[in-house]
Amino acid sequence: MITIRDVAKLAGVSVATVSRVLNNPAITTAETRALVLSAAEQLGYRPNANAKALATQVSDMLGVAVMDVSDPFFGALVKGVDGVAQRHHKHLLIANSYHNAEKERHAIEVLIRQRCNALIVHAKMLPDEELAGFMRQLPGMVMINRIVPGYEHRCVGLDNRAGGALATRLLLDKGHRRIGYLASDHPIEDQFDRQQGYEDALILAGITPDPAWRAVAEPSLAGGEAAMVELLSRNPQLSAVFAYNDAMAAGALSVLKENGIAVPERFSIVGFDDIPIARYTSPKLTTVRYPVTPMAALATELALKAAAGTPDAGDEHRFMPTLVQRWSTSFCASPD
Amino acid sequence: MITIRDVAKLAGVSVATVSRVLNNPAITTAETRALVLSAAEQLGYRPNANAKALATQVSDMLGVAVMDVSDPFFGALVKGVDGVAQRHHKHLLIANSYHNAEKERHAIEVLIRQRCNALIVHAKMLPDEELAGFMRQLPGMVMINRIVPGYEHRCVGLDNRAGGALATRLLLDKGHRRIGYLASDHPIEDQFDRQQGYEDALILAGITPDPAWRAVAEPSLAGGEAAMVELLSRNPQLSAVFAYNDAMAAGALSVLKENGIAVPERFSIVGFDDIPIARYTSPKLTTVRYPVTPMAALATELALKAAAGTPDAGDEHRFMPTLVQRWSTSFCASPD
Repeated sequence: MITIRDVAKLAGVSVATVSRVLNNPAITTAETRALVLSAAEQLGYRPNANAKALATQVSDMLGVAVMDVSDPFFGALVKGVDGVAQRHHKHLLIANSYHNAEKERHAIEVLIRQRCNALIVHAKMLPDEELAGFMRQLPGMVMINRIVPGYEHRCVGLDNRAGGALATRLLLDKGHRRIGYLASDHPIEDQFDRQQGYEDALILAGITPDPAWRAVAEPSLAGGEAAMVELLSRNPQLSAVFAYNDAMAAGALSVLKENGIAVPERFSIVGFDDIPIARYTSPKLTTVRYPVTPMAALATELALKAAAGTPDAGDEHRFMPTLVQRWSTSFCASPD
Repeated sequence: MITIRDVAKLAGVSVATVSRVLNNPAITTAETRALVLSAAEQLGYRPNANAKALATQVSDMLGVAVMDVSDPFFGALVKGVDGVAQRHHKHLLIANSYHNAEKERHAIEVLIRQRCNALIVHAKMLPDEELAGFMRQLPGMVMINRIVPGYEHRCVGLDNRAGGALATRLLLDKGHRRIGYLASDHPIEDQFDRQQGYEDALILAGITPDPAWRAVAEPSLAGGEAAMVELLSRNPQLSAVFAYNDAMAAGALSVLKENGIAVPERFSIVGFDDIPIARYTSPKLTTVRYPVTPMAALATELALKAAAGTPDAGDEHRFMPTLVQRWSTSFCASPD
């Protein structure tokens, strides 16, 4: 890599002079400028961002820690962050944490060592106290999809419980009474909150949620298939299911199809997230929209403001999910 | 942010002593070590990766420039890079370039300024000469999905033309003769090569490709819908189409369904890429697999070796696509 020393040598001037030409050209002569710029051009020299970051203790990088950037949900999150980052001329440093406490800690540590002073963190496995410790040290760190007590104003969350209730109420309104739930086996609050919302809505309608109506599996296409097979074989005579996420809903859809159970004519399904996959299934999925892009954009604005020393005071930032009605639900064909 | 100076002050030693304790503890006394480590712990001090990068002119970051990390194809690419990077204790710096020459150039420049000495670049809009210029200056830069003349051994590509022929031959083997092509409107070589492969296979089977069998649109679900509508309304009596990518194939599938044309009974479709979406459609898509994860892993190994001064000599690295047969193709119901 070409350094500032190489440029100084070729131009026949000192390193300090090269630095002045590049950072403060007004105080240099036209002749020196021409000499230095021509040498820099000839060698393909580029200023070192690390040197600038070291001098100012601020890097122009914005750190993002997510579970897995290749997952469509996290892809949408990163895109939301990048939209704001580009406007502020910041560059993204991305660390994957794969839903693992050790890797979540490591991802945050890496971003700190690179001196990202603004950080957007999605972490589900680390305890609140440890995250609070990081947030105390790093004013520009903001959490997404998690509320850390004591730092609510630097957290952007979603009301998952309201989302679970929304999905279940839609099915109840269409006359369904025996409504299953395809649960995720990841022990994270999103899962507990969505299930709680589902149970809230049933109880409010005078229905006791039956544990036999619930099957637990990986929150993926294959997991949705397995959970739906389990419910069908247990035969609790359901007419609808609410799925933890769209991937599981798509898996359930394909199992129902293979078993000749027409969706939505004989069976209704509601997903959660509204990732692009929801528009690729047949029928297209009715789902609960997780507004991840605006949430990520807000988290980024908060992090940049806080890193610049002008944090937003105010309350926690909790978004509400909304329904997206497509073609996987209809009125119950066999009401009790 | 806590600096090394704060640690030195609290420990009552010089900055040089703190640096010695952290980087070369063997030459310090146990007493000094305890003093410094306790101060560092108390303040939550973390070594500055920028300082290390500046001193060694090498960062522990690996740069990746892709079109858009939220696109599932590029998500899979980044994941392939990350798998290798993690093994080598490197961290990813990701820059999006959005299929735009200006942004591709900017993405590469940003990664260089951050002193990533290993770089994986996906760039389609910059001319060969400009990329060759970057590659000359940066021994650790490797291209993916593009072959730059003169730097073939640092390029990992796919034989898109062979892939187009593979898809078309599958349809020919099933008795189809009037086979359409849903083309992408992005003017990149992937599009021209896949279309060329489609035409090669038809010509080899004694069929003259008819321009009326081809519709051009955005390489997305909506683009696939639009292109399929155009072909249906033009009525060239096709019994099958090959689509530029899986997203377009999924769009075509939904238009055929809405028009009561059963897939695969009356109409066959083959996609390209084998992104996860191909398993979510109904029927599941038969497609051509783009082995992006192993290609990204190889590109990363090549970049790290070259950055370490031990480049692979050898030839260009061109992967072959393979067929993934699912349920969207069958024998032609109405052969000519």
